[in-house]
Amino acid sequence: MTALPGPVSPPPRLLMGPGPISAYPSVLRAMSSELVGQYDPFMTATMTETQELYRQVWGTANEATLLVDGTSRAGIEAALISLIRPGDRVLVPVFGRFGHLLAEIAERALGEVHTIEVPWGQVFPVSAIEEAVVRVKPHLLALVQGDTSTTMLQPLEDIGALCARHGVLFYSDATASLGGNPFEADAWGLDAATAGLQKCLSGPSGSAPVTLSERAVEVIGGRRRIEAGIREEGDEDAPDFIRSNYFDLGMILDYWGPRRLNHHTEATSMLYGARECARLMLIEGRDAVMARHRLHGEAMLAGVQGLGLVVFGDVAHKMTNVVAVEIPEGVDGDAARSAMLADFGIEIGTSFGPLHGRVWRIGTMGYNARKDAVLTTLACLEAVLRRHGASVPSGGGVDAALDVYAGAGA
Amino acid sequence: MTALPGPVSPPPRLLMGPGPISAYPSVLRAMSSELVGQYDPFMTATMTETQELYRQVWGTANEATLLVDGTSRAGIEAALISLIRPGDRVLVPVFGRFGHLLAEIAERALGEVHTIEVPWGQVFPVSAIEEAVVRVKPHLLALVQGDTSTTMLQPLEDIGALCARHGVLFYSDATASLGGNPFEADAWGLDAATAGLQKCLSGPSGSAPVTLSERAVEVIGGRRRIEAGIREEGDEDAPDFIRSNYFDLGMILDYWGPRRLNHHTEATSMLYGARECARLMLIEGRDAVMARHRLHGEAMLAGVQGLGLVVFGDVAHKMTNVVAVEIPEGVDGDAARSAMLADFGIEIGTSFGPLHGRVWRIGTMGYNARKDAVLTTLACLEAVLRRHGASVPSGGGVDAALDVYAGAGA
Repeated sequence: MTALPGPVSPPPRLLMGPGPISAYPSVLRAMSSELVGQYDPFMTATMTETQELYRQVWGTANEATLLVDGTSRAGIEAALISLIRPGDRVLVPVFGRFGHLLAEIAERALGEVHTIEVPWGQVFPVSAIEEAVVRVKPHLLALVQGDTSTTMLQPLEDIGALCARHGVLFYSDATASLGGNPFEADAWGLDAATAGLQKCLSGPSGSAPVTLSERAVEVIGGRRRIEAGIREEGDEDAPDFIRSNYFDLGMILDYWGPRRLNHHTEATSMLYGARECARLMLIEGRDAVMARHRLHGEAMLAGVQGLGLVVFGDVAHKMTNVVAVEIPEGVDGDAARSAMLADFGIEIGTSFGPLHGRVWRIGTMGYNARKDAVLTTLACLEAVLRRHGASVPSGGGVDAALDVYAGAGA
Repeated sequence: MTALPGPVSPPPRLLMGPGPISAYPSVLRAMSSELVGQYDPFMTATMTETQELYRQVWGTANEATLLVDGTSRAGIEAALISLIRPGDRVLVPVFGRFGHLLAEIAERALGEVHTIEVPWGQVFPVSAIEEAVVRVKPHLLALVQGDTSTTMLQPLEDIGALCARHGVLFYSDATASLGGNPFEADAWGLDAATAGLQKCLSGPSGSAPVTLSERAVEVIGGRRRIEAGIREEGDEDAPDFIRSNYFDLGMILDYWGPRRLNHHTEATSMLYGARECARLMLIEGRDAVMARHRLHGEAMLAGVQGLGLVVFGDVAHKMTNVVAVEIPEGVDGDAARSAMLADFGIEIGTSFGPLHGRVWRIGTMGYNARKDAVLTTLACLEAVLRRHGASVPSGGGVDAALDVYAGAGA
């Protein structure tokens, strides 16, 4: 580098992919708030307040509700490495890329991992999960709620009761779904759930909301290890201590809890951002936010169908906040996507593994679950499709979406 | 919570503790910049640019220079868990709390950990480290550069050559020291080094700059494991794969490198902030930043001595950016510290373990390595000391600091 670069100056983007998506303006403002010290009364009060906000976001009374400092994947690893002892059986139903990720992280934790799979684009019937639970007798069931790789939303309502009947811990990764699709940690019997900010919560990646049931906290509490530097007389290690310091949720709980034992230095700006994401959701109202995601998701779905695009997967089990469409025959998917970004400033996504280059994924999440964002995206996509050789009905996308809005009185 | 809280609104604070400290204003501005997509050309260019900035910060040509998304402790764990195979011998010279932390994290990685210790307030002579290297024959030497718990700065200049002679990998945690004290990754023969933003780099906690030598990258490359979800034919796992997905530096390098393999979703706002921290340091100039930390550290040292306070530890080996002073007999240390914060808005710190309640730690770092910050802190500390029962020379702190500035023509 010969000359030093100037201040960061991102180009204007409308992020309509599978996430990350554009942040709410007030979340960005919160991110630039002044820092305070780690044990400043304002800091600890903000942590406590943020915990309470996320209890409402998760639908839980769990005391153990907190943030892990890292991306959504950090939250997943913290939950799995804290709950899975080496050799523990873990069942992972896989219906997309992120199921594979849960299996992979559980394998790194030296769990004995069993997977069941359905073809991409489908979800599991409860009976298939119960059959596997009975057969595998896992310590933990790890299940993605919404897998952005396929856009599918796995129903979780009845899984907690199933797990309780069989004495299985129930964990779900709600990264892609939380805030845009119902999630009821207590009513659905979750023992652990994790997420990120960069999807429907409409914040930056880098903070992972986590909630843990009392049963999960007990398992974690049985795996205690105290840092030598702050160890006191009488403190003893569990033989099965967690093989990570950073992701030891017991230690993180001691930092977020009344003992306030020093662990990491909480990422203050991310805390401010995470707090604002939850606050905005609760000010709008959980039900209203879900309804908004449903409405704009339906408008986008109708719009892409109105453009003549074929929707991928079982639409009845689609997340509200993202739709996958098959790239039309003859269209260079990456070139069209690049044109959307370079010429129109709008980002849409491709997918992973078997779907890479075969589908585009279009999101309607958080701040961008908005009428103008949906209509602009459809109008521009029509233009790009036409210039890339597809035959598209003029105005078909925008008209279909406007019909949905008219029907909803929106 | 009956009513929802308002937008985050931190109280004004002058953070003069051992860190986190106040961020540079332009770092806070960078944090609120608009988000872009994960593979937006602007995003990948910003990642590449940030890598080059941190090469200059670290004093290295290491291709493998990147950020880990998490606090400084995440960077430490990523380095240690990626470099230490279960059973590997690890030598940790401990001269404060953060040496214990390195030992603890190495133990979680199932390394065979050997420690040597000096009393808090001292550092190791090279000969003591060499003696231990010869005796233990470690795979890795893990050594803190600056341990804020004691304020000591371990000289590293000759340790790399020692490690090279004995075929030992050399890792250093420079969290507290980087940016305020010289660090030359290449000239000093480092194989791995990690830091955080919240000390002399003057940004928020939550991003960990990491640099790795080619030798370290080779060790990590030998421990490869590919996620099932993005695995391709012919990809095979190493038997000794890294027991973490999130901290697998091989995977993180594949994301930061030209292959751009999807791993986590990079924390965009933290990236913006980290980039700005490095950019400000390089615009001011590395040498000028060091000189500034040295000057204001000397002024603060003279100031606290001018107030009649006894400095803790071996002053010849003190970091430039923090000083520890014994709490005067008869003064309630926590009450005085609380008064500094509540009445004057100035934060100073206490310490850990054997020094808790025995010393205060006062920092002069990053944005707050400034004349007005030093003088204000000394004037207010004098007032607080007097009101808490200490006998202090009137104006003794400010006068002594001003003498240092006058002597330096500052």
